[in-house]
Amino acid sequence: MHILVTNDDGVQAPGLLALAQAMRKFGKVTVLAPDKNWSASGHVKTMHRPMRVYETLLADGTPALTSDGAPSDCVALALLGIVEEKIDLVVSGINPHGNIGHDVTYSGTVTAAMEAVIAGIPGIAFSVNSMPEDSPLDYGPSAQAAQEIVERLLANGSLPKDVLLNVNVPYLKGEAFKGIQVTRQGLRLYNDELVRRTDPHGRPYYWIGGDFPTGVVEDGTDYGALSDGYISVTPLQLDLTAWQAMDMLKGWKWQADRRP
Amino acid sequence: MHILVTNDDGVQAPGLLALAQAMRKFGKVTVLAPDKNWSASGHVKTMHRPMRVYETLLADGTPALTSDGAPSDCVALALLGIVEEKIDLVVSGINPHGNIGHDVTYSGTVTAAMEAVIAGIPGIAFSVNSMPEDSPLDYGPSAQAAQEIVERLLANGSLPKDVLLNVNVPYLKGEAFKGIQVTRQGLRLYNDELVRRTDPHGRPYYWIGGDFPTGVVEDGTDYGALSDGYISVTPLQLDLTAWQAMDMLKGWKWQADRRP
Repeated sequence: MHILVTNDDGVQAPGLLALAQAMRKFGKVTVLAPDKNWSASGHVKTMHRPMRVYETLLADGTPALTSDGAPSDCVALALLGIVEEKIDLVVSGINPHGNIGHDVTYSGTVTAAMEAVIAGIPGIAFSVNSMPEDSPLDYGPSAQAAQEIVERLLANGSLPKDVLLNVNVPYLKGEAFKGIQVTRQGLRLYNDELVRRTDPHGRPYYWIGGDFPTGVVEDGTDYGALSDGYISVTPLQLDLTAWQAMDMLKGWKWQADRRP
Repeated sequence: MHILVTNDDGVQAPGLLALAQAMRKFGKVTVLAPDKNWSASGHVKTMHRPMRVYETLLADGTPALTSDGAPSDCVALALLGIVEEKIDLVVSGINPHGNIGHDVTYSGTVTAAMEAVIAGIPGIAFSVNSMPEDSPLDYGPSAQAAQEIVERLLANGSLPKDVLLNVNVPYLKGEAFKGIQVTRQGLRLYNDELVRRTDPHGRPYYWIGGDFPTGVVEDGTDYGALSDGYISVTPLQLDLTAWQAMDMLKGWKWQADRRP
């Protein structure tokens, strides 16, 4: 078993170290992760510039690769040949905040797993649902949860083609997880606000600020499971077709034929 | 009717001008688009740095706003208050290449429309399915197609909440479109290759290269409709739950309770 580990917080992030160490239980681990933080960077394919790949060391002294590409670029580079040995599984994380609801298309952690699935390799994104004030995080429990998820994957065969797993682990202090729930994607509630500031030269600049996002607590969803103290495992697909809107749209009066 | 126009190719791209001009038929048009090319940049929320917003002019002399944020940032900035007047519709494009199949999560054009829908505003992404050798493009037919789509939207009420439209127009030279098909998301076939080069100092750098992507020609899909000369209108949603995998995953033996 050969596992590629990446993340969106950068190769030196403690969450990546915890995940890489946890994955060594299952075989060989290769790390190729960004050289900087790419949070909320989305699904990137860098084609307008070349990318560099460097050797580095993780904080436990083990070798790793790092690139100036985005998380999804790191996966693409690895699978296109930077990593010569066949890769069986791509894991991404551990992200220090949950990737819940609409977060999944913004998230570098999740889009790295998407990139794996597009290339035909199973992909799993791991996040721990902490609050900003929880810092610094203890990744021990979430790394153990990541091991349990991968164990289940190996024990049950494989994932369907075109399906990735988005795993969110509650950040519990002292308590144990209640268990694991297979969930659907829930609803994030963003609290973004425009913050206008003025630079020393009198010119305005703008932050996307506001409070940390919350979510709709609903049974069967990622956010609902986390709120109850469960680990959330959400299968995600890359087919975004809104099937529920197809019939309505087909019923619109379209100009069927524009030829004279 | 107040329409926000953005794109991922930059505010001075001819496709944006064509779309902005076409939308003036329906009311007031405001442009807020990136100051550079963000192709394949994904769904971005820029929070680690502030953004600037500047006034500029389109090539037809009309005023526009431009920002150093990503396409989705431009939509967020506009809706969070940079544009004071209420926005009724967000359109993005016209992108000079198709956004088909898996392209939708990479595409700055499509993720700009996603950002609108997350904020509760209808969003439509417009792309023309040209080949690189078609350059420079005549945006006249695709701008006319964009008008037809928006006319249909207005005549039929609105889109369901959480649904955006991904519109792809075939690039036909001299022929007419055969009509409009409501489609599902098809399958892109990427032909990416790792291209290794060496800089003047003997150090390697890597391009994601290879041939232009193709797709699976299949009836009822975006790529199938385009291949037949039809305009493709695909409703997309932001719920990526892989429902077809839920039962299988629930059937895995999960450790139900980790408490002693």
